[in-house]
Amino acid sequence: MARGRFISLEGGEGVGKSTQLAALAEALRGRGLTALVTREPGGSPGAEAIRRLLLEGEETRWNPRAEALLFAAARSDHVEKTIKPALEKGEWVLSDRFLDSSLAYQGEAGGLGIEAVRDLHRFGSLDFLPDRTLVLVLDESEGALRARARDGHLGDRIGSRPPSYHAAVEAGFRAMAEREGDRVKLVDASGSAATVTARLLYTLGDLIS
Amino acid sequence: MARGRFISLEGGEGVGKSTQLAALAEALRGRGLTALVTREPGGSPGAEAIRRLLLEGEETRWNPRAEALLFAAARSDHVEKTIKPALEKGEWVLSDRFLDSSLAYQGEAGGLGIEAVRDLHRFGSLDFLPDRTLVLVLDESEGALRARARDGHLGDRIGSRPPSYHAAVEAGFRAMAEREGDRVKLVDASGSAATVTARLLYTLGDLIS
Ligand SMILES: Nc1ncnc2c1ncn2[C@@H]1O[C@H](COP(=O)(O)OP(=O)(O)OP(=O)(O)O)[C@@H](O)[C@H]1O
Ligand SMILES: Nc1ncnc2c1ncn2[C@@H]1O[C@H](COP(=O)(O)OP(=O)(O)OP(=O)(O)O)[C@@H](O)[C@H]1O
Ligand SMILES: [Mg+2]
Ligand SMILES: [Mg+2]
Repeated sequence: MARGRFISLEGGEGVGKSTQLAALAEALRGRGLTALVTREPGGSPGAEAIRRLLLEGEETRWNPRAEALLFAAARSDHVEKTIKPALEKGEWVLSDRFLDSSLAYQGEAGGLGIEAVRDLHRFGSLDFLPDRTLVLVLDESEGALRARARDGHLGDRIGSRPPSYHAAVEAGFRAMAEREGDRVKLVDASGSAATVTARLLYTLGDLIS
Repeated sequence: MARGRFISLEGGEGVGKSTQLAALAEALRGRGLTALVTREPGGSPGAEAIRRLLLEGEETRWNPRAEALLFAAARSDHVEKTIKPALEKGEWVLSDRFLDSSLAYQGEAGGLGIEAVRDLHRFGSLDFLPDRTLVLVLDESEGALRARARDGHLGDRIGSRPPSYHAAVEAGFRAMAEREGDRVKLVDASGSAATVTARLLYTLGDLIS
């Protein structure tokens, strides 16, 4: 049986990652594929326990280095316990955020450097990478508007950081698309949900075959 | 005001680390010094939350790489929130385990390699090191006997690993004493508690002055 494909969906707060992930999974199932939807931080029982440590509490609860180590630990568990077993069964895995969020948030916006954060992934997950990473790109203020329209606020420890931080996150995602253009694709997230889903499926065309 | 000194106490299960730490703190206080006793994993609220993740649950709860990342995250928080602030106030800090436990347990016995685990400490804590590390060395079976006499068992996820693992831990501590002989000293842990305390104080003589 063919190994499944691993796709990560990335982008800033409220760009539509979760909405699109559900739509993509439906579209893949319509093509007869099995699709597992998962998320980061989290996606396995151990990683969900780490997620609670990461997203709760005061902004100063963790220094940036401890935070990056916790993300890498959660990812190591998620890859081992959830992602690889599903791929080996031939399933597609769709993850709401993965490594590139750490590179953009902790590496670029948080000032630790993309290489240092990538080294933690080399150590923790032996540099296991998605087959394709789709970065949803939207004018930052429109993303924040969407998320606020949904929740009334930008919730957790990380979502509530200032606009300059979120602009640096976006720059980080763009840097990844330049560095690893075969894996990481920027996708316009404006327009209706159905329009965005069509763009994403087009970008996955060579993998769905 | 002079910066305080940071001393870590290391060694396998049941060698007498906690007993000696209390005795050392008393001896230092008797010399008019202020001594803070702390422990790893833990020693700060965030690190204690990570400690619970590390020591509870099934042996297979964490893969060795995720485990090493969690120890490094906890240590980063412990250094930042507890150890450095105390040293800056001029206090002595005595820690029940620190970096060398990770090097011996995860690096040497766990097979990740001492250098890889040290790299995590470089990242997480900018390679912050104790002024002196005292490794209590005892015939392994005598340490296990002492711990069992105390608890009736070797308790947690890590203490309950097989004898071959604990022999490799001891080899890891010896390797550290060879590599960094100025910082890491082996101390014979046999004999009465008072005898061992006297040996430890002798080994700290140049720091107490
Ligand atoms: N194409 C779209 N046009 C308008 N609104 C949208 C579109 N896609 C999603 N939304 C709405 O925007 C809000 C945010 O979408 P969603 O929760 O999918 O984003 P997200 O990227 O997962 O956000 P978060 O970063 O908070 O997890 C939701 O209320 C959703 O219904
Ligand atoms: N010198 C000694 N001689 C005999 N027994 C001792 C000596 N020192 C400590 N003990 C006893 O051995 C047991 C283990 O000691 P202690 O708890 O200090 O070790 P530890 O290294 O902190 O153990 P753990 O690794 O489980 O934390 C305790 O019951 C303690 O009272
Ligand atoms: Mg979402
Ligand atoms: Mg103890």
